[in-house]
Formats: sequence, C-alpha cells, structure tokens
Amino acid sequence: MNPIYQDLKIQCFQANKQLPALGLVLFTFGNVSVADRSLGVFAIKPSGVPYDALQAEDMVIVDFEGQAVEGALRPSSDTKTHAVLYKHWEQIGAVAHTHSTYATAWAQTQLDIPILGTTHADHLTVNVPCAPPMSDEMIAGDYERETGFQILQEFDRRGLDYREVEMILVGNHAPFTWGKTADKAVYNSAVLEEIARMAYLSVTIRPGVPRLKEALIQKHYLRKHGKDAYYGQ
Amino acid sequence: MNPIYQDLKIQCFQANKQLPALGLVLFTFGNVSVADRSLGVFAIKPSGVPYDALQAEDMVIVDFEGQAVEGALRPSSDTKTHAVLYKHWEQIGAVAHTHSTYATAWAQTQLDIPILGTTHADHLTVNVPCAPPMSDEMIAGDYERETGFQILQEFDRRGLDYREVEMILVGNHAPFTWGKTADKAVYNSAVLEEIARMAYLSVTIRPGVPRLKEALIQKHYLRKHGKDAYYGQ
Amino acid sequence: MNPIYQDLKIQCFQANKQLPALGLVLFTFGNVSVADRSLGVFAIKPSGVPYDALQAEDMVIVDFEGQAVEGALRPSSDTKTHAVLYKHWEQIGAVAHTHSTYATAWAQTQLDIPILGTTHADHLTVNVPCAPPMSDEMIAGDYERETGFQILQEFDRRGLDYREVEMILVGNHAPFTWGKTADKAVYNSAVLEEIARMAYLSVTIRPGVPRLKEALIQKHYLRKHGKDAYYGQ
Amino acid sequence: MNPIYQDLKIQCFQANKQLPALGLVLFTFGNVSVADRSLGVFAIKPSGVPYDALQAEDMVIVDFEGQAVEGALRPSSDTKTHAVLYKHWEQIGAVAHTHSTYATAWAQTQLDIPILGTTHADHLTVNVPCAPPMSDEMIAGDYERETGFQILQEFDRRGLDYREVEMILVGNHAPFTWGKTADKAVYNSAVLEEIARMAYLSVTIRPGVPRLKEALIQKHYLRKHGKDAYYGQ
Repeated sequence: MNPIYQDLKIQCFQANKQLPALGLVLFTFGNVSVADRSLGVFAIKPSGVPYDALQAEDMVIVDFEGQAVEGALRPSSDTKTHAVLYKHWEQIGAVAHTHSTYATAWAQTQLDIPILGTTHADHLTVNVPCAPPMSDEMIAGDYERETGFQILQEFDRRGLDYREVEMILVGNHAPFTWGKTADKAVYNSAVLEEIARMAYLSVTIRPGVPRLKEALIQKHYLRKHGKDAYYGQ
Repeated sequence: MNPIYQDLKIQCFQANKQLPALGLVLFTFGNVSVADRSLGVFAIKPSGVPYDALQAEDMVIVDFEGQAVEGALRPSSDTKTHAVLYKHWEQIGAVAHTHSTYATAWAQTQLDIPILGTTHADHLTVNVPCAPPMSDEMIAGDYERETGFQILQEFDRRGLDYREVEMILVGNHAPFTWGKTADKAVYNSAVLEEIARMAYLSVTIRPGVPRLKEALIQKHYLRKHGKDAYYGQ
Repeated sequence: MNPIYQDLKIQCFQANKQLPALGLVLFTFGNVSVADRSLGVFAIKPSGVPYDALQAEDMVIVDFEGQAVEGALRPSSDTKTHAVLYKHWEQIGAVAHTHSTYATAWAQTQLDIPILGTTHADHLTVNVPCAPPMSDEMIAGDYERETGFQILQEFDRRGLDYREVEMILVGNHAPFTWGKTADKAVYNSAVLEEIARMAYLSVTIRPGVPRLKEALIQKHYLRKHGKDAYYGQ
Repeated sequence: MNPIYQDLKIQCFQANKQLPALGLVLFTFGNVSVADRSLGVFAIKPSGVPYDALQAEDMVIVDFEGQAVEGALRPSSDTKTHAVLYKHWEQIGAVAHTHSTYATAWAQTQLDIPILGTTHADHLTVNVPCAPPMSDEMIAGDYERETGFQILQEFDRRGLDYREVEMILVGNHAPFTWGKTADKAVYNSAVLEEIARMAYLSVTIRPGVPRLKEALIQKHYLRKHGKDAYYGQ
C-alpha cells in the first residue's frame, strides 16, 4: 500500500464507521468518501463490505474521473456519483450517502422536506431539495455518473449554492450529503435524518402546516453561519 | 445426538440468534430453518423456547414432509409451512419467519408493500406480495401445511419466481422470507422490515404516492443481481 | 422483615425490573404486584421509587382490601386497583400496570384495539377492550378502588372471561394486564404494547381496515390455548 | 476557577449529561442551566461543545442579566432566554432546552399538545402551551432575550402559573422546561417528550379526539401535587 494514502484511508474508514454508530445504515446501505485535493483523489468504502468487517486498508483510492487508483477491492457502486460532485464542486472535502429511513421515505415521495422549524433553519435556509427521478435516458446511460449530474443540475435549476445547502434527496432513491470535512458530511447525514423525522411528524399531525417564517429562517441560519455568527466556540 | 446433524444445527442456531440481534422478534415470535438437501432434512427452532435460553443442540431435525427426524423438543408450530416450501422450491436452503412490526402491520392491511424506491428495487422488482387470508377450509384443515400452499399458490397466480422474489406477506398473519443460505434468509427478513417501514412513512406522507418508474426498478435490480451485476466484491 | 414474605418480595421485585428492561416504563410510570393466595396478600412496588434504586426489600405487602400489612414504604398509588382485581378474580396471581406508549395512546382515544392479525389472535380472540372513562362520581370517590370496579364492570358488560382476556385499557388512562404468574402478567404488558403498535400502523396505512376473520381468530388462539394446543413444549 | 462555583458547575454538568442519556438530544441541540439564587448566578452549558467531550469545569457562570461572570468558554447561544426566565420567575432553580423529536415536531405545527390522558394530567392540568412564533421585530432585536419574553408573555396571556406548568413549546422552535431543581427540569423535558409522543399517536389514530374530562384532570394532578397528594414517599 502506498503510504501517501494512509491518512486519507484512515479518515475515510473512521467516517464510514460513524454511519452505523449514528443509526444511519442497515447492512451495507451507505458509504462515505473523503478527498485529498492536493493529491487529486478520494478514498471511498469498498462495495458491499459489511461495516463490522471493514478495515482502514480496505478503502479504495479513486480519482475525480471515478477511476480506481489504488486498492485491492472494488469501490462502492456509487463511486462515480461521488467523483462528479468532487470534480464540479471544488470546495467539498467529503461526501456521504445513506438510505437512512426518514430521509429515504421522503425521497420516495418525490417531495422536498419543507422547512418547518429552527432545527432545519440552523442548517439551511430552504427546503431540503428533492431532485426528480432521473430520465430513462440517464438511467440507461452511465447511471451513477448521471446521478451526480442530476444533483448538479437540480442545484443549478434552483440557484442553490452547494456551500450553503449541503444535502439533497435524489427522488425515489436516497439522500446525499457533503461538507468541507468528513465529520461535517456525516454530521449532515444525521441532521438530515432528524429534520426528515420531525417534518414527517409535523405534516402528519397537521397536513398543510405552514412554512417557517422568513425572519426566523434568516435569524437561525445567520447565528450559526453568517459572518456575525455567535454559535459555538 | 447424531453427529451428522451437528453442523446443520449450529447453522440453524446461529441464524435464529440473528433475529433478536436485528430487532426482528419479540419473545418467541419467529423461527428460522436451514436445510441440508443432501440429507433431505432441515433443522428448525423448537417451539416456544425463548431466544435467550436457546442452545444449538435444541434444534430439531425434520424431513421435507414435516416429520421430526431427531431432537428432544417439539419443532416450531410453523414447521409444516417450512417443509412445504423446501419440498416444492428446490433451490432454497433456508426459511425465516418473523412477526417483525412493520411487515406484520402491512400483512394486517392485506395490501402489498408498494415498490416506491431503490432500496426496494435493490432486492426485488415487484411489490412485496401479500397473499390473501386463507379460506376457512384451509384454516380448518392442516393449517400450517396449507399456509405453505397459500404461499406457493400466490406465487403461481402472480407468475413470480421464488429465486427472484424471496419474501411474502401472508395476509393477516406475518412475513416469510427465504434464500439459498441461512444468512440470506435472515438478511431478507431485515430488508423486508426496513422496506416496510420506509413504505409506511411514504404512504402516510403522501397517500397515493406513485410506484417507482420501471427504468429505475430494472437498473437497481440488475446492478445487484443480473449477469452484469457490479455491486459487491 | 417477616421472612414469610421474602420469596414473594423477590418475585415482585424481579417482575418490576422487567418493565424497564422491556422498554415499557419511563421513570416510575408502572408497577407490578404478585399475590400469594395462601397468605391472602400481594407484594407491590412502592410509590414513586425509581426502578434503578429499587430493592427487593422495598416491596410492600398488602392484603386484598388494599391495606398495607408490612413494609417501610408507602405502596403504589394504584394499589387499591390491584386489590380489587385480586379479590374478585380468584385465579390471577399477578397484575401489571404500565403507561407503555402505544397502548396508552390507544387508551387516550377511548377506542378498543381492533383484532387485525394472528399476533393478536395468538393471545386473545377479541379486540383489546377499552373501558370508558370513569364517571365523575367514581372519580370523586375512592378513585383507585373504583378503577378496579370499572375494569370488572367492563368485563361483565362484555361477557368476557378474565382467564381468557388478560388485558384491558382504562379509557384516557393506561393499560392493566394480569396472569396466573408474575412472568405472564409482564409478558402480557409487552405483548399488548406490540399489538397496539402493529394496530396503530395498520389503521394509519388503511383506515377502516377489516377485522381478522373468525376462522383465523379461533385457529390461532386454540393452537396456543385450547385443550388441543400444540404450541410450545 | 473560583471554588465558590464548583458545586454549581458539577450540578449543571450532571444535568446536561442526562439529556443524551434520556435520548433527548442529537449532537449539541440542547442545554441545561442551574441557578444559585444566593449567588445571583446560574451555570450553563458552553455553546456548541459535544456532550461526549463535556467536562464539569467547562460550565459557564452567568448572571441574571445574561452576562458571563466566569468561564473560559462562550455560554450557550440560548443563555439570555434562560436569564430572562430566572430573573422573572423567582422560584425556578433550573431550565432545560432541547430539540427532542416529538415535542419539536409539535412546536413546528404551532399547535398546543392537547391534554388527552392521565400521563399528561399527572404533570399539568392544561394543554402544553405553544407560544406563537415571534414577531419580526422581536426576531430582529435581541432574539434570545426576546424568546424569554415571548415565553413570559404567553404565560401572562393564558393566566398560567410557572410553578404549576413547567413547560412550553416556542412555536416553530422547540421546548423549554424548568423546575425547582436540575433533576426536575430535566425530568420535565423527558415527560414532555413522552406526552408529545402519546398525543401524536392518539391524534393520528383518531383526528379530533376529545380532551380529557375535567374530573380526571383534577384527580390525577392533585393526587401527585395537591396538599393532599398521596403519590410517592
């Protein structure tokens, strides 16, 4: 094993192990990747390997075209989706994909997760976007690569900035989240699942519940993220 | 104890112990059997024994007519259902039966679990079938044996192949799953429970939610199961 | 401490400790009692003592009129309800009371839990009865004692046999269960919670879901409980 | 560190650690403060510090105007809300704030949690109040301080006594609870979450479910809290 990738593999391994610890995956239904932009590669979980059996040295090194660079195992079947996001969104350092229960249930409805409270607004100022299911042509093509483009196009279409909105639902499929670091990408997956759960409960208590008012959205987002943020240390 | 059955009993014991570990059983509400086709028998959990107290040597050896061959305890009351499935479906190596919460709740509605997302399509290309409740005649007859025939007939009626669809709900009762191996049969029980949970959430968020489009169904199933499958190692 | 009650207190203590282990109580919201008919008394949890701090010697001995016989602590505030049940139902050996989430949510609706599947029919052949909320006169009177009579009267009104139906919801309050032994009473509380959860899911998937057919009700109940029962060892 | 605050910090630390143990917080989404009225200060969790990494000496000492008195870290961003409550409600000794799932989902609906059962009435005799979302002016002003005033005003508007109703939902935000002691404030957060969960289930089983009758409300509250209370030791 090339020692140059050692640290990256360990980071990726540790990030992947957080998914079952946070209750976000059943069996192998998820994967995290972590990029090293100076090396032009990312590490990603191998395909279909159970989390219990996973080792740091199993992580696969892949370039931003989705080509395997190093590793004895085949990378996650979702690798090309990760590669597209890294290639086009230059400031992300990690990507997480899960089939977490509530977020995936929303994806199955093809609906955005509406912004209903400050827990949501602490993290993003808009609904969690749900990209429509892909066209038959995209599905029949290079499917996982096209999944990446479906995400990019939905952000373009809505005028969203991936540095501010770090999560999406792919319609009928499941969530993808990202961030500058591995911890942030995984954190976003857990936050998304909790937002999805709260929104589920609110819309089943009160169908047609109104969206959070704009003043609260801006206040909560900016106290955590603006230049005058005062949350945290 | 006949040493010829030793390995089979251990396999069966370990598979049964996975059910509580995966959160799929309360008390004794479930059982797994594992077949040895060369010996023409299967091992199955004894009836009504709590999972905590279960030992490998408690497993009961039964033939494909449902007759006990070896074992000090009475086999599961569902034994004849397992026997019918082994006898008629020659390529299955294990059967699991649980009363897992969400799958059983769907069975109680007498509705199929609709195929709404790729988590489902990764495992089967159709709705999870729900067999109608059995006729009064079948219930009054050899009930557990008839339960097996109810399953077989539902597969015939729908033109399903048990090698592709490895799960069913028996209406008003509970799920049965199977597979080539004990691990696969238990895995299918856990996957079914998760599919059932996601579908529950989706249909309560959006009643009448549309079925997953055919192109996605085929794509996801084939990337895991077709001759050109590329998921896993 | 009178050594004559030693065994009874230990049984009662162990039964009470099962409630948090089974996820049936939050804080002190539950209690189990166990009777010794030869001594004409029952042991019951002391009022308001957290389960973590509970000790076997804390159990309070009470007679079937609800009068404390021995013990340094005040018995559960629900003691008189237990006493009424023991006095009038001569074949019960233990009573459990919880505020388990799903069963209590049903009690809050004042609706019976409908019999929808075999998990339910394995344990009782009728809906889980929900007694109406008590009259203002009963509430203003000897409330906990009247709660016991409310349960007895509901069984009389419906023509139910407490030896066959070992559970009830007290409307707007919470469940009570009982059995010949402490283990059975606690088991019934856990089964009731699971039945309540499954029924919750089924009625929210399919409002107006039909009741389980009579043939299945009888079959499942009798294979576990009739004179020709063949479930268990 | 000033030794005069040592005990208060330890109390506050232990109370904060109860939140994750009770399943009431994800990541850092919650905080508990504990007051020492003789010193005119309260201790509160530092902002954004994960519960796993939290130490007793990290607690920040703040006065009832919300000004930090001692501590190396920045106090919770919600500090001024706590300060307002301590300043105006002289008999409270601790305040807890969480984003627990069911309580927050109710807050997102802007609806009170209706009083439907005795689990609720054991703790308060009215619906759990949901304050309306704050005005744009309040949000644009000293937001966290105004959140405190929103709570005070809602109690005034409804004629509620903070010594009897120890919890509120802030509309579109999340719950706050309080009590004479740290244990009681945290206990109230857990009770509120359970009440919220039961009410969720009841209103989705039976939309429009009737409120608990007044006689039961008074009976249950008074047996635990009135001058003739007989619950507990």
